[in-house]
Formats: sequence, structure tokens, C-alpha cells
Amino acid sequence: MIVAGDSASRTKTFSDEDVRSFANISGDNNPIHLDDEYAAGTQFGQRLVHGILTSGLISAVLGTQLPGPGSVYIKQTINFRAPVYIGDTITATVTAKKIREDKPIATFETVCKNEAGKVVINGEAVLLLPTE
Amino acid sequence: MIVAGDSASRTKTFSDEDVRSFANISGDNNPIHLDDEYAAGTQFGQRLVHGILTSGLISAVLGTQLPGPGSVYIKQTINFRAPVYIGDTITATVTAKKIREDKPIATFETVCKNEAGKVVINGEAVLLLPTE
Repeated sequence: MIVAGDSASRTKTFSDEDVRSFANISGDNNPIHLDDEYAAGTQFGQRLVHGILTSGLISAVLGTQLPGPGSVYIKQTINFRAPVYIGDTITATVTAKKIREDKPIATFETVCKNEAGKVVINGEAVLLLPTE
Repeated sequence: MIVAGDSASRTKTFSDEDVRSFANISGDNNPIHLDDEYAAGTQFGQRLVHGILTSGLISAVLGTQLPGPGSVYIKQTINFRAPVYIGDTITATVTAKKIREDKPIATFETVCKNEAGKVVINGEAVLLLPTE
């Protein structure tokens, strides 16, 4: 039984191999993720982890920890607040905000921070909760 | 120069290997994605492609086609409307809806459909456009 305020988190360091693997399976081979020389000439100065790959860490917490297996993703909003560079260590935290009384549906605040504590992604997720 | 109505799309068939690879790099090893026996006992009856992996196809169109390299992701909303099964062929389409006049920021409608034409994901993306 989930109550408002329940929270779970997970931390991962995103490697060059992760980024190349995600480029391969998603088809997103934008050079900002893959090409050092191109990235050096952008406002970011170096290659970035795909935003959707970073947000996969939120999905991992939701799908395996809170609410966990049996839940069904209904909606996710993702605000990309700051760049994530190759090698950054990201912590995704999900916190239950609202649990509907009429249906097993809950809204979670979803945040990713880098190791400096800076918010790189925030937003909300809505999930159908597992029912036994 | 992007104008409202501009559209781009991309199609991909999501394989078991894609799903296992995404589970590995995201850490989302929810059994609904990986375990045939578990999945058979759920409302879906079979394993699902991770929703965030499917939405990576939207990110691929935005990052490589429209608006393409040099654009910066500001926001993505994702409504998960129907399940995506292993082996489904998904087409992601992005369509420019609003281009701001004061800043190089555009809003795109983002939709994924399966091969039967059913909407599996819809939502909106906001991006900072490349400026020369």
C-alpha cells in the first residue's frame, strides 16, 4: 500500500558504452551524443547523455522499486533542466504525491540530480498501481 | 527554417535484443519486459517493450531529422496509450505545431503508432531550435 510521501531512488553512472548502446537501439545518433569534435563546437563543449536515456533511470525506479512490477505507466512528463555529460553519476528519485481514492492510480514526482546535487530532469509520472 | 506543419517520421521494429539491451543500460529489469512466464500472467499476456525505449524513437526523430542536430530538448510529455509488444513495428512522427516569434523555441506534436495504425504513445515536445 503506497501512501503520499513514499519515495525510492537509484543511482547510475552513464558511460560512453551506455550512450553508444542507446544510440544503437533508439536510432538517435545525433552527433552531440557520439562525436567529440562536433560536441566541442557546441554550447555544451562535450558530448551529452541522451535525455531519454537519463529518464530511463526514472522508469527503472518506477518499474522495479516504487510502485514496482505490476504497475502500468500511464504518463510521464520530462523537463530537461541541465545537461548530463558522459561519466556523470545521476540519482533518480520518485516520490508519491497523490493516490486516487476511486482508482488505483498514483502521481509521482520524478527528479534526477547529478552528483553535485543539481536537478538535471524533473517532472511527474502517473501510474496504474498493482492490485492483488 | 521550420514552419508549423513540418513533419518527419521514422519506423523501427523493437526486438528482444533491443529490450534486453535497454534493460541493461537503464537498470529497468521489470519482469514484464524480460520474463515470458511472468508476462503471461499479466493483463498483457506477453512481454512489453519499455515505454521509455519506445519514446526514444521520438527523440531520434527530433535529434536527427526535425529539428535535427543542434536542437536542445527542453520538455517531453509522454502519454502511454497502448502496449508495445516485442516485435511490434513502431512509427514515430513529429509535427511542428507552434514556433515562437520571440525565441527559437518550437512545440512539436509527437506520436507513435504501431503497424495497425493504433496510437501507442502521444504527447508533445518543446525544443530550442538550432540557430546559425
